[in-house]
Amino acid sequence: MRLNHLTTLTIAAAISAALPSLHAATIRAPAELPAKPTVADAVKASTPADWRALDPANTLYMDIPAGRIVIELAPEFAPQHVANIKALVAEQYYDGLAITRAQDNWVAQWGDPDEKNPKAIRHAQRTLRGEFTVPMTTVTSFTRLPDADGYAPQVGHSNGFPSARDPKSGTAWLTHCYATVGVGRDVGSDSGGGTELYAVIGQSPRHLDRDITVVGRVVAGMPLLSTLPRGAGPMGFYDSPDKNVPIRSIRLAASLPAEQRVQMEVMRTDSAAYQAVLEAQRNRGGPWSKVQAGHLDLCNAPIPVREVAK
Amino acid sequence: MRLNHLTTLTIAAAISAALPSLHAATIRAPAELPAKPTVADAVKASTPADWRALDPANTLYMDIPAGRIVIELAPEFAPQHVANIKALVAEQYYDGLAITRAQDNWVAQWGDPDEKNPKAIRHAQRTLRGEFTVPMTTVTSFTRLPDADGYAPQVGHSNGFPSARDPKSGTAWLTHCYATVGVGRDVGSDSGGGTELYAVIGQSPRHLDRDITVVGRVVAGMPLLSTLPRGAGPMGFYDSPDKNVPIRSIRLAASLPAEQRVQMEVMRTDSAAYQAVLEAQRNRGGPWSKVQAGHLDLCNAPIPVREVAK
Repeated sequence: MRLNHLTTLTIAAAISAALPSLHAATIRAPAELPAKPTVADAVKASTPADWRALDPANTLYMDIPAGRIVIELAPEFAPQHVANIKALVAEQYYDGLAITRAQDNWVAQWGDPDEKNPKAIRHAQRTLRGEFTVPMTTVTSFTRLPDADGYAPQVGHSNGFPSARDPKSGTAWLTHCYATVGVGRDVGSDSGGGTELYAVIGQSPRHLDRDITVVGRVVAGMPLLSTLPRGAGPMGFYDSPDKNVPIRSIRLAASLPAEQRVQMEVMRTDSAAYQAVLEAQRNRGGPWSKVQAGHLDLCNAPIPVREVAK
Repeated sequence: MRLNHLTTLTIAAAISAALPSLHAATIRAPAELPAKPTVADAVKASTPADWRALDPANTLYMDIPAGRIVIELAPEFAPQHVANIKALVAEQYYDGLAITRAQDNWVAQWGDPDEKNPKAIRHAQRTLRGEFTVPMTTVTSFTRLPDADGYAPQVGHSNGFPSARDPKSGTAWLTHCYATVGVGRDVGSDSGGGTELYAVIGQSPRHLDRDITVVGRVVAGMPLLSTLPRGAGPMGFYDSPDKNVPIRSIRLAASLPAEQRVQMEVMRTDSAAYQAVLEAQRNRGGPWSKVQAGHLDLCNAPIPVREVAK
């Protein structure tokens, strides 16, 4: 095979006469990168101080027949919607509703499957003014990535959430990455309120950023959503009610006795340990990797989460 | 809610005294974008000349119990591996093997589940020299995206495949996007050959670009891979043989009678129609969208595929 390979290159060289670059290409491939810590190594090297426990007051447990999905809410980025979703949870609005949509490489969405006779809401709001961005000044933490981003002037992490900001407009927002949870809406900016929620199950749809209210992210249980049968209806909606996946309940962790809570920690994205994680992902060492990317897309930045013994 | 929202902003303004930016933030949200053609509209407006039929000589049908996965091979980017995969298919090497790995937000992988007694190969090669990049001059078509990319100097499409290139080194390569199919390998650059293949089922792992041989992409049947139960073993491998998903067969379309082939077309990525698709995705019109992204990531560029009547 070596001979064939070199032959190919020789022919190409004759065509292009770009010998130096081809030479570079041929010597680049076999080069061995020095070993360096992997993401797993960086996580292993972290200390307890590099982690924070999920705040029970901002953690949702969504239970479906297949198991539990844990969602961390981000009140800083959607204060009205997060408050309203908690109000909906408190009155057990979601219990008995269903996952009604799973569109491949897009989103899984849940809410009220019966649009004709929508479930009554007692105390919460059905719709709110969209919170597509918030003033930058209201975001307490932003650890910027040095990596360029096509969708936003600045990207990074805010307390464990992928986020972006635009100093020119003074706004900040949560970005659409895998596992991001947002608020389904109709055409109007103010037509959503949390009765319909979705989670990203595919390639990050960053073009939705600043166009819809994002309330948090799934920190555990993504496979329960990503492996859902895809809907055969338009936009991946299930084409018959029997295909909907029932939601047994959505609960706020704080509303449950401590022993019934999932004890989880998220790595602090403002820690040096997390910087090590990012660098391990941005420039992987040998021997498996032969080329370093030298770049890290926001949505390719892993956010370590771990369950801790009670 | 309007009042509450304004109150929030007023408080924030008091904190930040950044009134102009906050003002900008408040007036930007309600703005209505003019309607413009959607991706669906751009596809609808295309003409037959904007499409090409899949080449049966470079199309694989992978049949598993749940259905058929259609893979288009890209010989220009991995001539030796594509030839070898076709040789493996010709000797029905993959028949009876299995999907052995499904790692969430990563890849589904298939090959020989029995590493102790590997299936014999009659005529094809077991390993080849890695084809991580090819000389730019051997790529016949490259329609560059105007959008910046963090992982490569230039990105775009080559005959329906997301690709990148680096004029400095004179190299080009297929990129890792959702549905990209690559060649599993061991630590050595030359340790793969096509006996183990994978498809990306999550966020585009662009950091694998130029580090592994990419041979094509799944053009139909992705949900059959993306909804596979995730493996409980390390790296998402299934932790017991009974969980492996059997591969009934992998066939080259050209080896089947015409009436047994899936008649599919891919939009020509060098067509004006495709430019319209890209622009529709890059800058969506109203009324649903309120903000235009003004950017399109390579792996967010849809590549329209359609089945045509026989």
